[in-house]
Amino acid sequence: MTAIDFPPLFVDLFTGKMGMDKREFELFCSHFREMTIRKKDYYLKEGSISNAKAYVKKGCSRTFVIDENAKEHILFFAFEDWWLADFESYHSGNPGKQNFQALEDMELLIISKQDFAKMEIEIPKLRQWYDLKQRKMNIAMINRLSEVKTSTPEERYMNLLKKHPEIFQRVPLQYIASYLDVEPQSLSRLRKRISTK
Amino acid sequence: MTAIDFPPLFVDLFTGKMGMDKREFELFCSHFREMTIRKKDYYLKEGSISNAKAYVKKGCSRTFVIDENAKEHILFFAFEDWWLADFESYHSGNPGKQNFQALEDMELLIISKQDFAKMEIEIPKLRQWYDLKQRKMNIAMINRLSEVKTSTPEERYMNLLKKHPEIFQRVPLQYIASYLDVEPQSLSRLRKRISTK
Repeated sequence: MTAIDFPPLFVDLFTGKMGMDKREFELFCSHFREMTIRKKDYYLKEGSISNAKAYVKKGCSRTFVIDENAKEHILFFAFEDWWLADFESYHSGNPGKQNFQALEDMELLIISKQDFAKMEIEIPKLRQWYDLKQRKMNIAMINRLSEVKTSTPEERYMNLLKKHPEIFQRVPLQYIASYLDVEPQSLSRLRKRISTK
Repeated sequence: MTAIDFPPLFVDLFTGKMGMDKREFELFCSHFREMTIRKKDYYLKEGSISNAKAYVKKGCSRTFVIDENAKEHILFFAFEDWWLADFESYHSGNPGKQNFQALEDMELLIISKQDFAKMEIEIPKLRQWYDLKQRKMNIAMINRLSEVKTSTPEERYMNLLKKHPEIFQRVPLQYIASYLDVEPQSLSRLRKRISTK
């Protein structure tokens, strides 16, 4: 038995939704280790190889890429119950392009790529979960691309507010602006205009 | 035996790369039917349910979404050896948001969602291929999102030219402009400027 305290959402996902039995779940859990990341520190930086999956037990992070002019662009945020990995690096084994920085002190549960691959073979329900997750990720990415192309900054802001209202309490405004592809000043004006509507 | 003439790239993918044996490959192929789409006609329109996978044997198409002001935005192009489906609609069973229009006369090879699901169980190599495909799609989508956010129109144009030089012979310039998120006039100027460099 492991001494890690797995959060209810994690337990429910694998034993409830995915239907792992007690033996499978304990076997799976036995491959995790805990990691803490202090606010502003990095879980992964561009150029490093992503060779583990990290479950966010507590805290939040931003995932960003850096362009040729050294400007940062935020692709994703992650909160409790999300998983962190540089997807391309994880699957290719090559150095990644993404940076993962903690925006609050974080507690992560880590499983290595090697252990996860072993578990996927031993526990078919884990494989099923990962298939489903990749499918959902694809759908989310297509919708995100579609949103980036078709919507106005105001629409993107309203969508984010609807989907993740808590984000504005936890993430600095300049990062939300980068995620939404608007200038921080425009986002401030937008928020004022909408809040007084 | 089916009377359909499967193209070499299709045969090589499933019998070569994915290693299906003769029996598996013939079983898989027996579930396909042919469909032709005339230039400018649609394979799928927004609001319809995507309940099949279509392999592009010949021709090319554009996949676009329509915003609230009735403006079209091109998400993808497809050429020979690509597959067409509205990914979200295919997996959710709900009406899709994407439109697929032929830019040339097209020949498609179609397999229904139901038959594909049956084949995935009977032929584990097919399941492996689809897993790999979803993984690649996720990587491509993350890179596309990253490109849309970080690069200039000129960089996006140069990337497209490098990856798909043939596209400029087959796809009207206004569609390429929509894909790249630039105005058609700007793309014309950009092309002139670069070709005289």
